[in-house]
Amino acid sequence: MNKATVIARPSEQNIIIERVFDAPRDKVFAAMTQKDKIEQWWIGPGYDVHVERLDVRDGGSWKFVQRNKEGHEFSFHGVFHYISPECIIQTTEFDGLPESGHVGLEKMELFDLGNGKTKLISTGTFMSVADRDGMLQSGMEEGMQQTYARLDEVLQEMK
Amino acid sequence: MNKATVIARPSEQNIIIERVFDAPRDKVFAAMTQKDKIEQWWIGPGYDVHVERLDVRDGGSWKFVQRNKEGHEFSFHGVFHYISPECIIQTTEFDGLPESGHVGLEKMELFDLGNGKTKLISTGTFMSVADRDGMLQSGMEEGMQQTYARLDEVLQEMK
Repeated sequence: MNKATVIARPSEQNIIIERVFDAPRDKVFAAMTQKDKIEQWWIGPGYDVHVERLDVRDGGSWKFVQRNKEGHEFSFHGVFHYISPECIIQTTEFDGLPESGHVGLEKMELFDLGNGKTKLISTGTFMSVADRDGMLQSGMEEGMQQTYARLDEVLQEMK
Repeated sequence: MNKATVIARPSEQNIIIERVFDAPRDKVFAAMTQKDKIEQWWIGPGYDVHVERLDVRDGGSWKFVQRNKEGHEFSFHGVFHYISPECIIQTTEFDGLPESGHVGLEKMELFDLGNGKTKLISTGTFMSVADRDGMLQSGMEEGMQQTYARLDEVLQEMK
């Protein structure tokens, strides 16, 4: 299985994630931007996900709600600064923090590696090192590995 | 005259700007978000400004074009992640760079100091220290001091 590499240098406010997918770029982009596909893979352990808002265009906004059997919810929302099959630049805010306004800027580049493979390089920039470290300590990395493994399956099913 | 303080610590990707305005918060917010007001103060030396797009709402987008007598243009655009009289969170991209996709995240908080005074604290976060330093080296600080001095005048005229 492909595994994501996570880089978070001490003196920076970034989390850089690199991951190869065994699918062509257009398919990866489709799986990342279509409601029915996202609802199959953007899930947490024990949580399903509902795409409440998704307007795939520059200036469009998005909101995803994760929910477990007990009805406990997490949600995330943001806006697209730029979106194309090569590059998505968006804001992301986790709605469960005690204080709103801690926003991340995320740049997701999709590189066509040929042979039906695509490399994702995601650069997440946070407003402070503390915000960045909070995200790292939330168990983000483990959740992300599982989520991308699920995305692998969705990409295989897409054919 | 009030002067802006600019803080840019070596190990961070941020530029923090603090500036007091002798006007109540609602008036400062209005001057920052109304097309006719922005076109009076968001100008560079020898450049006027045209507000090409301004949709003041969460998920709304904006584009400002600065133009000089010779027709030379600079433009900037972005989207609003969140906007209220207390806090604006937006993306900002300068369209004149050789490569697109170098985006900043800007959080502008307006604090009511009482006695008709308002403090702006702007935290600009860049994707890298290099992007941040590029902005500092562009002459941003001098331009900003002049621009805020012009905003002082616009606020006085607003009554």
